[in-house]
Amino acid sequence: MPSVSNSIIVRLELPGRPTAVSELTGAVERAGGLVTALDISSSDTARMQVDVTAAARDADHADDLVEAMRSIDGVDIRKVSDRTFLAHLGGKLKIESKVPIRNRDDLSMIYTPGVARVCMAIFEHPEDARRLTIKRNTVAVVTDGTAVLGLGNIGPLAAMPVMEGKAALFKRFADIDAFPICLDTTDEDEIVRTVKAIAPVFAGINLEDISAPRCFDIERRLREELDIPVFHDDQHGTAIVVLAALRNALRVVGKDLADVRIVQSGAGAAGTAITRLMLHAGARDLVLADIDGVVHRDRPDIAGDTSSTLAWVADHTNPRGVTGSLKGAVRGADVFIGVSAPDLLTGDDIATMAPDSIVFALANPKPEVDPTEAAAHAAVVATGRSDFANQINNVLVFPGVFRGLLDAAATDITLDIMLAAAVALSGVVKREELNAAYIIPSVFHPGISSVVAKAVVDAAGGRDHRMAVSQPDEATV
Amino acid sequence: MPSVSNSIIVRLELPGRPTAVSELTGAVERAGGLVTALDISSSDTARMQVDVTAAARDADHADDLVEAMRSIDGVDIRKVSDRTFLAHLGGKLKIESKVPIRNRDDLSMIYTPGVARVCMAIFEHPEDARRLTIKRNTVAVVTDGTAVLGLGNIGPLAAMPVMEGKAALFKRFADIDAFPICLDTTDEDEIVRTVKAIAPVFAGINLEDISAPRCFDIERRLREELDIPVFHDDQHGTAIVVLAALRNALRVVGKDLADVRIVQSGAGAAGTAITRLMLHAGARDLVLADIDGVVHRDRPDIAGDTSSTLAWVADHTNPRGVTGSLKGAVRGADVFIGVSAPDLLTGDDIATMAPDSIVFALANPKPEVDPTEAAAHAAVVATGRSDFANQINNVLVFPGVFRGLLDAAATDITLDIMLAAAVALSGVVKREELNAAYIIPSVFHPGISSVVAKAVVDAAGGRDHRMAVSQPDEATV
Repeated sequence: MPSVSNSIIVRLELPGRPTAVSELTGAVERAGGLVTALDISSSDTARMQVDVTAAARDADHADDLVEAMRSIDGVDIRKVSDRTFLAHLGGKLKIESKVPIRNRDDLSMIYTPGVARVCMAIFEHPEDARRLTIKRNTVAVVTDGTAVLGLGNIGPLAAMPVMEGKAALFKRFADIDAFPICLDTTDEDEIVRTVKAIAPVFAGINLEDISAPRCFDIERRLREELDIPVFHDDQHGTAIVVLAALRNALRVVGKDLADVRIVQSGAGAAGTAITRLMLHAGARDLVLADIDGVVHRDRPDIAGDTSSTLAWVADHTNPRGVTGSLKGAVRGADVFIGVSAPDLLTGDDIATMAPDSIVFALANPKPEVDPTEAAAHAAVVATGRSDFANQINNVLVFPGVFRGLLDAAATDITLDIMLAAAVALSGVVKREELNAAYIIPSVFHPGISSVVAKAVVDAAGGRDHRMAVSQPDEATV
Repeated sequence: MPSVSNSIIVRLELPGRPTAVSELTGAVERAGGLVTALDISSSDTARMQVDVTAAARDADHADDLVEAMRSIDGVDIRKVSDRTFLAHLGGKLKIESKVPIRNRDDLSMIYTPGVARVCMAIFEHPEDARRLTIKRNTVAVVTDGTAVLGLGNIGPLAAMPVMEGKAALFKRFADIDAFPICLDTTDEDEIVRTVKAIAPVFAGINLEDISAPRCFDIERRLREELDIPVFHDDQHGTAIVVLAALRNALRVVGKDLADVRIVQSGAGAAGTAITRLMLHAGARDLVLADIDGVVHRDRPDIAGDTSSTLAWVADHTNPRGVTGSLKGAVRGADVFIGVSAPDLLTGDDIATMAPDSIVFALANPKPEVDPTEAAAHAAVVATGRSDFANQINNVLVFPGVFRGLLDAAATDITLDIMLAAAVALSGVVKREELNAAYIIPSVFHPGISSVVAKAVVDAAGGRDHRMAVSQPDEATV
C-alpha cells in the first residue's frame, strides 16, 4: 500500500486544457499512487502551476509516479520533493532557553555573577542539582549505531534521525527533555566509560539500537556503576508492551498466564527481556527457539556454557525439556511470541496450536507469520505494524516509564517496576472495550504516559518529586 | 552596591496602620537594601499581605534585610525567596521537537518507517548529516568543572548552572542549539576520548572552565583529532574580545599596535591566547609577567624547559629582554593587560606608564588595579565588570564566532578567523561613537553576533551553508 512516509510533492506546469488535472491524477492512480493533496498555485489561460502530493509504496515507486506524471501531454515537471526528507531538514530538535535574557539584570541572575551562588549551593548539596538544573527532566538517548531499526550497523551519524525522533517522542508523550548521544565508538569499555563520564547532566539513560550481545553487558555495567536508571528500550520497552498486550489477550481468551504454554521465537535483546519479565509475572511454561532451534540445556552450542545469556535462558525456561524445531514447539502451544525474523511459520503451523491461540508476530516489517493467515486459526493476532490491528509499539511504554522514573528520582529500574508498568498499560483498555482486535491502546490514546508513570512512581517506592516551579517557597534563602 | 543578582522576594503581613508600608521600605533602605518592587497582594482593615522585592549586596546582606523587615512592629514574615534561585528552578534549558506529532502520518514520517530512508541517505552521504539532522546547528558546551568562574574545582554537577547559562546565551545571541556536557572525570585522556566519542552529534565544541595547563593539551589534541572546530572560550573568546577592545583603545589614543609596548599580567589560559592573537595581529613588544615575575628565557623555572606553554611565551615575547617584577615592567609601557589576580598594581604604578596609557584590568570581580585609581592616570580603562564603562565580556564573541563557524561548516578555528572576528567586533563601534568610555559595545547592542559571524564565514573561506529550510527544493528525491 502507498504510505505517507513515502510521499512526494511535485511542482509541475500543465497546459490550460480542462481535462489536464484529471489526466494527471488519473495517471498517478493508474501507476498505483495515492494523490493526497493538489493545489493550483497559479494559473493563466495557457498554463497552470500545480503542486501535487502523492503517496508511493517506496522510493522506486515514487520515481514511477513522477514518470507517470511526465507522460501527460504538455506537462513540465519543475521540482520533486520528498515529504519525509522535508520534515527532517535542519533536524527535528531545538534547544530553548526557559529564562528570558532581556537586559543586564536578567544576565546577572542566570549567568555571572548570580549563577555562582547557585553553583555553590549545588556544590554543598549535590542533590539540589535535581531542583536547580535541567538534570531532573533530562534523559540521554544513547546509541552506537550498530543495530538501528532493521538497518544494522549504519554508524552514529546515520543513526541520528532515529535518536532525534525518539527524543521528539519523549517530548510529545511525556514532556521529557531528551538529547541524542550518538557514539563514535563500538567498543564496550569505551561506551561504558563515555556514558559514565557524561552522566552528571542526566537523570536517566535510554540505550537504543546497540547490537546484542554487547548491549547486555553495557547495560549491566552501567546499571552497576551509575546512580540513575539505565533503560534499554529494545529490551525493557519491548518486554513491557508485550506483557501488557499478552495480559489482555489472555483475558480475551479466558486463559491464565501461569497455565499457558508459551513458545517464543528469538533469544536476542528483546527476546531475553520478554522472557525475564514474563517469568517475573508468573509465566511457567516458556519455550524459546532461535536460529538453531529450541533452546535447551543439552543443545551442543549451550552445553558447556554457563555464563552466556543463552545459558541463562536454558536454565530458566523449557520445563518440559522440549527439543527440536520451532515448528515442532508451537504444536499445542497457547501463545506464540515472535521477535525474530520474517516468514518462519505458516497458517498451517498456527493451526497446530491449542484452541483459542494467541499469536504475536513482531518481526518488522515482515512478521514471523502472515497475520491474515494467522488470524484464520488464532483467536488473537498482534504485530509490530501500524496497518494491522493490535500494534505492539514501544512508544506506548518508554515515555511513561521514564516520566515515572524521573518523577520518583529513581536510581534503578527493576522487574517490579517493569511489571507495574505493564499492568498499568494493559489496564488502559477497559473491560467493556476489550476484544480480540483491541488488546492494546493506540499510541495517541490520551493519558497513557501518565497512567504508566503513576504506576512506576508507586513501584519505585518514591513519592512524586515533581516540583511546582511556580511556587516561590521552593527556593527559600 | 546592591545587585539584582542578590535579590530576595519576601512575603509578609503588616498591620493595617497607614505608615506600615513606609516603615517597611524605610527599614530596608536604612539597612542598605534597594526596594525594587512592592505588591500588596491582599488586604483588610487589620492586615495587609505584601510581597516586597529587595536587592542586597550578597547573601549575608540579604539576611540583614530580612532582619530589618522583622523589626517593624506587628510584622509577620511568611516566606523569603531568592530571585536568582527562582530563575534556576527546574533548570534553564528545554528541548523541543521542531516537528508536529499529531497522528499516525506524522509518526510515520519522523519515526519508523519513514525515518529509515533518511538514515540510509546519511549512511550513503555522511555530509548530509548537516542537512538532515540537528548537527548543523548544535554545539557541545564541555566542562569538567575544574575551573568554574572564580570558584575553582567544584565538579561537573555544580558547574551545570554555568554551562546551562552559556547554552542559553548561545540561543539568545546566535540562535545556536547548545547542550551542556559536564564530565565526571578530570583525566586528560578520558576527557579527550569522551569528547571524541560524542562528537558526531555536534558541529562544534566549546570547552569551558577547564583548568590550565590541562586545557591546553585537551584543546590541542581535540583539534588534531576532530573534524569540527574546538573553541576554548577562556582562551579564544577572551583573546578576541581583548584584541577588539585594544584596537579601539589604540584608535582613541592614536597609537599603533605594532609600535606600542604591551605588558601583560597572567600567562594562563587567557593570557597565552591573548599573546598569540596579539602577535598574529602585529604586536611586537609584548612582555608577560606571572606570579614569579617577568617571563624571560633565563628565568630559572623556564631555562631548561622547551615544551611548556611558558617556554613558548619566553621564546616569542620580550624582545628587549626585560627581567624583574611586573611593577618594573609597566614603567613606560603603553598598554597594561591583566588577566591574573586582584590588586597587583596601584594608581601610582599606572602613573609610571607612558602618556596616554591604556589599562585593561580584567581580573574579576576584583581587578588588578582599582579602575577609579587607574583612570586618574590612564587615558582608557577597561575591566571585566558590568558596573564600569568598557566591560570586556566574552558574550560579545562566542555566539557570533560559533554562528560563523557553523554557517561555514568550518572544521577548525584559526588565528586568521580569530583576528577577523576581533576586527569585526571592534568595527561595531563606529568612528563617531568611539571615545575613551566606549571602546567596546554592550552585549545587548543589536546585531553583534551577525557582524562577527559574517567575518568568520569570510575568514573560514566557506560560503554560508545556512539552509533556507522552508525551501522544498532542498530535499529533492
